[in-house]
Amino acid sequence: MEKQTSKPKWTSAPVEKLQDCTRRLAAVAMGREKADTVIRGVRLVNVNTGEILPDTDIAIAAGRIALVGDASHTIGDATAVIDGAGRYAAPGFLDGHIHVESSMMTVREYARTVIPHGTTSIFPDPHEIANVLGEHGLEFMIADAEGIPLRVFTQMPSCVPAVPGFEETGAVLGPQETARFMAGDSIYGLGEMMNFPGVLGGDADTHSKIASTLAAGKTVTGHYSMPETGMGLNAYIASGVRCCHESVRAEDALAKMRLGMYAQIREGSAWHDLHEVIRSITERKIDSRFACLISDDTHPHTLIAHGHMDHIVRRAIQEGVDPITAIQMVTINAAQCFQMDKDLGSIAPGKIADILLISDLTSVQVETVFIGGAIVVEEGEMRVEIPASQCPDSIRNTIHVPHPFTAEDFAIPAPQNAGSAVTARVIQVLEAKVGTLAKTHSLPVVDGHVCADAAAGINKLAVVERHKNTGETGRGFVSGFGLRQGAVASTVAHDAHNLMIVGASEADMAVAANALTECGGGMVAVRDGEVIALLPLPIAGLMSEEPVQSINEKVQALDAAWKILGCDMVSPFMTMALVSLAVLPELRLTNKGLIDTTTYSFTGLFVE
Amino acid sequence: MEKQTSKPKWTSAPVEKLQDCTRRLAAVAMGREKADTVIRGVRLVNVNTGEILPDTDIAIAAGRIALVGDASHTIGDATAVIDGAGRYAAPGFLDGHIHVESSMMTVREYARTVIPHGTTSIFPDPHEIANVLGEHGLEFMIADAEGIPLRVFTQMPSCVPAVPGFEETGAVLGPQETARFMAGDSIYGLGEMMNFPGVLGGDADTHSKIASTLAAGKTVTGHYSMPETGMGLNAYIASGVRCCHESVRAEDALAKMRLGMYAQIREGSAWHDLHEVIRSITERKIDSRFACLISDDTHPHTLIAHGHMDHIVRRAIQEGVDPITAIQMVTINAAQCFQMDKDLGSIAPGKIADILLISDLTSVQVETVFIGGAIVVEEGEMRVEIPASQCPDSIRNTIHVPHPFTAEDFAIPAPQNAGSAVTARVIQVLEAKVGTLAKTHSLPVVDGHVCADAAAGINKLAVVERHKNTGETGRGFVSGFGLRQGAVASTVAHDAHNLMIVGASEADMAVAANALTECGGGMVAVRDGEVIALLPLPIAGLMSEEPVQSINEKVQALDAAWKILGCDMVSPFMTMALVSLAVLPELRLTNKGLIDTTTYSFTGLFVE
Repeated sequence: MEKQTSKPKWTSAPVEKLQDCTRRLAAVAMGREKADTVIRGVRLVNVNTGEILPDTDIAIAAGRIALVGDASHTIGDATAVIDGAGRYAAPGFLDGHIHVESSMMTVREYARTVIPHGTTSIFPDPHEIANVLGEHGLEFMIADAEGIPLRVFTQMPSCVPAVPGFEETGAVLGPQETARFMAGDSIYGLGEMMNFPGVLGGDADTHSKIASTLAAGKTVTGHYSMPETGMGLNAYIASGVRCCHESVRAEDALAKMRLGMYAQIREGSAWHDLHEVIRSITERKIDSRFACLISDDTHPHTLIAHGHMDHIVRRAIQEGVDPITAIQMVTINAAQCFQMDKDLGSIAPGKIADILLISDLTSVQVETVFIGGAIVVEEGEMRVEIPASQCPDSIRNTIHVPHPFTAEDFAIPAPQNAGSAVTARVIQVLEAKVGTLAKTHSLPVVDGHVCADAAAGINKLAVVERHKNTGETGRGFVSGFGLRQGAVASTVAHDAHNLMIVGASEADMAVAANALTECGGGMVAVRDGEVIALLPLPIAGLMSEEPVQSINEKVQALDAAWKILGCDMVSPFMTMALVSLAVLPELRLTNKGLIDTTTYSFTGLFVE
Repeated sequence: MEKQTSKPKWTSAPVEKLQDCTRRLAAVAMGREKADTVIRGVRLVNVNTGEILPDTDIAIAAGRIALVGDASHTIGDATAVIDGAGRYAAPGFLDGHIHVESSMMTVREYARTVIPHGTTSIFPDPHEIANVLGEHGLEFMIADAEGIPLRVFTQMPSCVPAVPGFEETGAVLGPQETARFMAGDSIYGLGEMMNFPGVLGGDADTHSKIASTLAAGKTVTGHYSMPETGMGLNAYIASGVRCCHESVRAEDALAKMRLGMYAQIREGSAWHDLHEVIRSITERKIDSRFACLISDDTHPHTLIAHGHMDHIVRRAIQEGVDPITAIQMVTINAAQCFQMDKDLGSIAPGKIADILLISDLTSVQVETVFIGGAIVVEEGEMRVEIPASQCPDSIRNTIHVPHPFTAEDFAIPAPQNAGSAVTARVIQVLEAKVGTLAKTHSLPVVDGHVCADAAAGINKLAVVERHKNTGETGRGFVSGFGLRQGAVASTVAHDAHNLMIVGASEADMAVAANALTECGGGMVAVRDGEVIALLPLPIAGLMSEEPVQSINEKVQALDAAWKILGCDMVSPFMTMALVSLAVLPELRLTNKGLIDTTTYSFTGLFVE
């Protein structure tokens, strides 16, 4: 699996600030001093002018590019000379919007996984862990990103909790916390502002978070998921939001770019927006400087099977985008979006030497990766060891529930005066869709309790508050998973990440809940009182310290277990993880109960 | 001439920072509050996507753009509604490199002159006045730019003096002064770094100035006037210089853009680089985001006869650039160069409402100018009064010389043992060229003094130190002006701006020098002991408080006077102003003597 022990440890010092090394760079460019590294004879993907320039050398010193052109005079005895061999040299790829937690890995394992795919910088919004651990979770993610080759420009989560009042989270990040982090050096912008109703409506706290970001000269990143591109989108952009990854139609992205907003076109594991949205570029002759490509949420299987930013660039090319234009979307355009183009996003003098050598530009085969001028990947394989994450106990023990659970915890009392059956509201999930449907179904009453109806595809559903040991539990019914036996549970349940359990058997629901409580959170499948598959996610109940391959194997085992229990859905845990997300239509369950998200109000479990 | 008194005074408050008005902008975009101004029915020059969008409205509030699209719902009883009448709406034009002093006007008069031509922001480098008055001159220029509609983003002069040791200036601005200004809010970047040898050579003071600029997150602007585009240009750019206006060949600009440097293509009064340099765009299909258009030095006549940024955009279009692309070069590209694109350079929500209404896109006829949402120009005429400049005595009395001058002050003693003639080195000036030629000529010796030879086209030349009352005078001979009688003098003499006199008559040279000393500097022509034309420039000996038309009339009168004295050159004072500029080939005269600029050494006046 991992061969870290055979690799040299990553020890490169952080790249110097440009103001601290201009004399050295000038001396190297002039040949008075010699380069640390020279890459000879590449075909330069010049994202500045949109050209391929043949037979170009790149001289590197102090982690930055000293010269692009003929570098013969910069080569000395101690200079490492790399033969470009006519390969394409492109700037390292930037992912402008991404949640590391979705990969269920630590930042360090994520780095090990994505760097071979050409990703050299990410702009993560750690709002999943922030919902569990607040500032402490944020600080853990920042610390986990230090001293590693991947450049991690962490964003301040803007919406913790996502839906105040409708669920219990582990933490609240308000305007004061935002202002304090913005004033520091560890945060590079405001994470996706999902509360667009608050922006449009002029909510004071929401605008205060934006204001402290703008005042710090940092970037407000967006999440505008409405199809409306008139007054609402204008109000959102006028409020200082600079980019948005929520376009699902070509016209959404086009409207945003026309209004000066960076359209971050998404191709994640679950959301395949690129095919449709890239038509904003391929079907029009527009200036594409406001177009970017991003991943948002990517799961281990996608990273292993398809890659990361290389995959997304490849997808854009497959859809008809010129390769240079596609590469601009993950380099200079992204750097300009975050106004970091003095350092990143192009192969040019003075810029940080994050460089990819690519053997074929259409299939985007990344062979070699330089980060800060150091070789990190050769022949597609990591060549340096990234030290293990330091995970203190304080981020591990986050499942706080009264336990052990028993089957009775998942009993649902029938309404007073109920007969032998009641009409219940049922959340119907849909495969590979984020929306649910609000359905009703007649369910039997036995001994004063309402039963699920596995034969009719209806399972029990529970969401247990797991941050503050209140045990507060929302209970309901869900159709679409189709469990005919057993139970599944997960502590990945957006965005509050409470403990969610789905089951055909209350007894197995209790076993599942107990199993996750004992391992610090994760995902589990149970049959006949036995755990048949388990992915422990001890970090905040969201992430594992294990290698990507190990996590992926356990995810595959869980998928197989779901099938055994009767569910044929693709990636059912991904669908399950959204059942509690009360920002999406139509019906959702949180620890506080059933929510009609078409009216943003709590609703009864039974139709009166 | 001026009709200021009939106009309302400019009283608009400065535009609010975006973070202070996002709630208001959102409320207006949503229609909850009403816009201050709505421009209806324009053809939008969308520089973001490079398109013309028909029938578009623009809603403005708090000096910024709240909405672009259909603004019907933002119009209330108090909203000023302007009929766009199908005209083109373009962002206000930005001039990314300009010296106001070259116009011989105050910043305020310059603003009155250029705003009707669509210029709404300038990035001036006041290095002329800084050579005379140092920080005090800089502060005057900053103060003169306050409270006026033109946005003035003053740059810190980087090279005062331009050629240390070869001339006496009124001030020195070193790394400490640079660092102090950079830390403040009144300076937006480092002015053109003319000392490219210092950058390439790693000079500590030069790199220190760059470092303090980069550390402040500001922009280092360039001046790289060599044809070399290899190691030197790489060293220069690697040192953090972001833009350069000195390209004179298409390949210069192309090389810069490829290396990630903004190529600021120049079309000034004297330097017509655009015709050649724009071929870097018109003859190639490159991404033009790194191309800008700038004016550098513009004289009153050009501003009156041709315009300012409208003229330069027009020139680019005449050379074959698409109008939208040309407008991008003076809007979004320039804003991105200075990383001010969150505020400037496009018509989009949240941006400052600097907007032009243009009747014809090819001829760039600017009819209406909005600045910060307020109408400043209608029907091509200024509609607001900009208050008069406040010019303290401390910037007026800058001519410090022992005087009165007499003819004897301009006598040139013959070398010991000279016979009836000597061979002297002569500076030959060339019409409309910045370079001079180093010539020699035999000149008669009379009474132990070397005489000029007006009949042979050779005049006397003197440069008198005028800052510190030393009276130190460099004396020499010049050919090419061809004065047959009288004398001319000027205190505009780059870059030290000492007192320069050219004459056929030593007595008239003294009269000319005395006339300028008495009026605080300027330009003068004298014949037979009488002043026949005079342009007083009492502000630092460089600028006048008078209106542009008045200055232009006096310049025209001076040009006529030169002709009377025997000079047929076009704009002879412009050529004369460079005779002392010891950064240009081949032979120059400063107050310290004759300089061979091919070897950067002083040289004797006579050939031994």
